[in-house]
Amino acid sequence: MKKTVYNPKALVAPIGHFDRAVRLGDWLFISGTSALTNVSGPMSQRQLVSGIEAQTRETLNNIETVLKDAGGTLENVYEIRVILKSREDFPVVDRILRDRMPKRGFIAHGYEGTLLHPQMELEIEANAYLGPTES
Amino acid sequence: MKKTVYNPKALVAPIGHFDRAVRLGDWLFISGTSALTNVSGPMSQRQLVSGIEAQTRETLNNIETVLKDAGGTLENVYEIRVILKSREDFPVVDRILRDRMPKRGFIAHGYEGTLLHPQMELEIEANAYLGPTES
Amino acid sequence: MKKTVYNPKALVAPIGHFDRAVRLGDWLFISGTSALTNVSGPMSQRQLVSGIEAQTRETLNNIETVLKDAGGTLENVYEIRVILKSREDFPVVDRILRDRMPKRGFIAHGYEGTLLHPQMELEIEANAYLGPTES
Repeated sequence: MKKTVYNPKALVAPIGHFDRAVRLGDWLFISGTSALTNVSGPMSQRQLVSGIEAQTRETLNNIETVLKDAGGTLENVYEIRVILKSREDFPVVDRILRDRMPKRGFIAHGYEGTLLHPQMELEIEANAYLGPTES
Repeated sequence: MKKTVYNPKALVAPIGHFDRAVRLGDWLFISGTSALTNVSGPMSQRQLVSGIEAQTRETLNNIETVLKDAGGTLENVYEIRVILKSREDFPVVDRILRDRMPKRGFIAHGYEGTLLHPQMELEIEANAYLGPTES
Repeated sequence: MKKTVYNPKALVAPIGHFDRAVRLGDWLFISGTSALTNVSGPMSQRQLVSGIEAQTRETLNNIETVLKDAGGTLENVYEIRVILKSREDFPVVDRILRDRMPKRGFIAHGYEGTLLHPQMELEIEANAYLGPTES
């Protein structure tokens, strides 16, 4: 099976020793992504866009950038895990998912968590299947 | 590869814009499931069965309902992730898993987390393989 | 597809009703692993090695033991999820990952969480692909 790693130039380098995405055959696994993923500089000095709505949109844009690099789109995503600083924000995230991934076709997990950077309002893990599908 | 989504009528609709389960080939990925998964009404007004034992059993019943819809059983599950409101409850969950999935054949991850609904004592994520297996 | 479970004798039995690892075809899924995974005795009485550095190394050694049992190495790992008691410890974990998995080829997720045993500083979930790969 072919294994390929993706670290798109349109984003910054991962904040640690890992790859942004790994493709095995037609399966694409993407590292936890946030509004931090496209901001450069030492971790503690990065300034993120403010608010759950802006951060959710930025996060999905960053996931889309990874998918594009691997030849896919958000429609290829079949699983997301949303870690929220505050569970009260779930309806906002849900509304934006509806907007950005209107056809659905994915499962979701969600809960509160303390994320690595204090300004992060959420992080989204996403897995995608890039091969042809019939339904 | 064939892609199919499952939103069993025996459960209520997902609380957000996602599917209850997605099947890709013989792999079945199930959204985080809880005792909330079969209770209808606006999120904040749903009344859940009370206590870790009842919620664990209800959660596994709900996962079983999804699996049945996709042509499988709890024996097809190869991975679970248990998010507990209180880690003190782990032995209860473990006892019920022993009862409901006696043959094992699955890995498990577990930790405490703050779940989306205040009455939720636990949520279980489950992945299953529905194709034939030899061992 | 062939399904095999792994519970290496070089480690102690899992603390609950689950298997240490499950292999489906060439995919290997490993239960959340920690410095607890090779210490025997009742959960509450187990004494873990102390400090994030020692626990991270012990955890990776334990994951390596599982992989070896299944015919693999740390180079087969394509995904890790690191749950940390304190996010301040992330740089230490990152440094050790760099040391132990120098070629990268994996994605990573990380956040703070309350783990099942009070002495646990971290837990790592790992998935591996054991078949041949080309890049």
